[in-house]
Amino acid sequence: MKGTVLYGPGDIRFEDREDPKIAAPTDAILRLSATCVCGSDLWPYRGLQPIDGPTPMGHEYCGIVEEVGSAVKFIKPGQFVVGSFATSDNTCPHCLYGYQSSCMHREFMLRAQAPFLRVPQAEGTLVATPGVPSKDLVPSLLAASDVLGTGWFAADAANVKSGGTVVVVGDGAVGLLGVLSAKQMGAGRIIAMSRHEKRQKLAREFGATDIVTERGDEGIARIKDLTKGIGADSVLECVGTKESMMQAIHSTRPGGYVSYVGVPHGVELDGQQLFFTHVHLHGGPAPVRRFLPKLIDLILNGAINPGKVFDLALPLDQVAEGYRAMDERRAIKALLRP
Amino acid sequence: MKGTVLYGPGDIRFEDREDPKIAAPTDAILRLSATCVCGSDLWPYRGLQPIDGPTPMGHEYCGIVEEVGSAVKFIKPGQFVVGSFATSDNTCPHCLYGYQSSCMHREFMLRAQAPFLRVPQAEGTLVATPGVPSKDLVPSLLAASDVLGTGWFAADAANVKSGGTVVVVGDGAVGLLGVLSAKQMGAGRIIAMSRHEKRQKLAREFGATDIVTERGDEGIARIKDLTKGIGADSVLECVGTKESMMQAIHSTRPGGYVSYVGVPHGVELDGQQLFFTHVHLHGGPAPVRRFLPKLIDLILNGAINPGKVFDLALPLDQVAEGYRAMDERRAIKALLRP
Repeated sequence: MKGTVLYGPGDIRFEDREDPKIAAPTDAILRLSATCVCGSDLWPYRGLQPIDGPTPMGHEYCGIVEEVGSAVKFIKPGQFVVGSFATSDNTCPHCLYGYQSSCMHREFMLRAQAPFLRVPQAEGTLVATPGVPSKDLVPSLLAASDVLGTGWFAADAANVKSGGTVVVVGDGAVGLLGVLSAKQMGAGRIIAMSRHEKRQKLAREFGATDIVTERGDEGIARIKDLTKGIGADSVLECVGTKESMMQAIHSTRPGGYVSYVGVPHGVELDGQQLFFTHVHLHGGPAPVRRFLPKLIDLILNGAINPGKVFDLALPLDQVAEGYRAMDERRAIKALLRP
Repeated sequence: MKGTVLYGPGDIRFEDREDPKIAAPTDAILRLSATCVCGSDLWPYRGLQPIDGPTPMGHEYCGIVEEVGSAVKFIKPGQFVVGSFATSDNTCPHCLYGYQSSCMHREFMLRAQAPFLRVPQAEGTLVATPGVPSKDLVPSLLAASDVLGTGWFAADAANVKSGGTVVVVGDGAVGLLGVLSAKQMGAGRIIAMSRHEKRQKLAREFGATDIVTERGDEGIARIKDLTKGIGADSVLECVGTKESMMQAIHSTRPGGYVSYVGVPHGVELDGQQLFFTHVHLHGGPAPVRRFLPKLIDLILNGAINPGKVFDLALPLDQVAEGYRAMDERRAIKALLRP
């Protein structure tokens, strides 16, 4: 088969790779229905995160089970499945506490921008849908694999409650789906920080009640204005830079909650400064597996349509254009069809 | 009157100062029954925190109301009161959310190592006991003013739950009262980190089930050993240094809770490292006022005896010896009697 490999900054190639094979009895092989490019793929693509030689890319996936290892009992060939970007046995203590992305057997997925994919710990990582879903639902189910699951975790970790005031920092797919998640959780007011018209529009469609275009100290001042000087109850930091983190922390009321779900790059927090903000801070790689059953249910019931974040769909062999479009912010998120 | 003034590292003087007077209609003047030296007083005493000229010291206090301003209705002369080290109106939005130590009218108390004290925002800061308590209860009621309230907040912010595994980093008065608080909240296992025999003994008396003497990476390894490789549910960081913070964070299980209640000195947190630990982090100046009614009740009912942290009692005019004894770790905490 052919698959996606990053050779260096800006250098994405779609080239021959070995077909994946069952390597452990807990593995499954999937034929992917769709995959996509993640905002986090842009860090190494932009040369902002070093790679160690040519690197197979992709960690978002859904599709049909082709084959399973001998220890896999409850996931069966022919089923349509969605999996998390982090594998999990779903039985270790960390998994049982709901932190499957810190599973003692965790691996971060790679190689998903390809037609076939090996998934380790298949039984603890994959969730099957009841029957094979219609094609129009595939983008939303694919979103559940990472960006929706991550946006949902952002809202959950920021303690979004019915009637609460929520701020979302970051208008990428995760931020936008953080808006959608906050809406589902009953937030009373959802302030999306975005200066990009198309993304503002989608944020409003997903439930944002206010848009703030200012950033940094001006953005913080605007949030304070909008909240009578108090600050927000819940702030979702969906970028991962020092600036976005500071913006999130200082937009939160004392005793409020800040979540952060993008891998931080160059973020140093001053302990004393954080101390006097009085915020709760929680984040990390989203334990998508915890939320998958619920998210799949919401999608299949038509309650949510997170697939709207895919504003570009390409044949998989045009993956390089998907990266370019996202890098240049021409596309929010690029779906790839094998 | 005479009061305590810090002139520079190691230079504590008990000298003439003006008698405090009502300055605002929301003030009260107290005749203190007892005051004490705080671990946080040692930062400037040791020259590790700059002072801006001679500084009146002390922020822990309880005593009899002498006089109140014209706007003070519910606190009355003759009452015995305990107050927080941070003043609060107890009516602003931050107060109503339970973060009185971030009150919009907050002042950090000073000048309490003296026989008389002016307390701003008296009605929102002070809690009166029903009747004047017996003398033997005064040390415990004084403890509620800061160290007990702070230890209690540490346990609350670290989400201590019935049956949970708790680690306390720091064997000062706050850490020891963090142990007591965790015990009251029903913790199943309380691991105190201490290498000081007298403090270990008091930790056990307050409810510690295990003592760990190792620090840093060895301390973390020991906690992992004691928790089957999982880490603790709740870790209370009661020191405020980089080393203690790292020890706390890495002793916690993914999804577990770290609280930090000592003003951090020289603590920088690496965002990416924190991200992958998956912990919840919450702290700040303890909103003691939130907990005072409950803590006073527990003390008056004899359920807890936090006054045991005072292992040295001195006449107020010997305050300099109190600082020396704590600085040299000869005393856990020095009570001062005006």
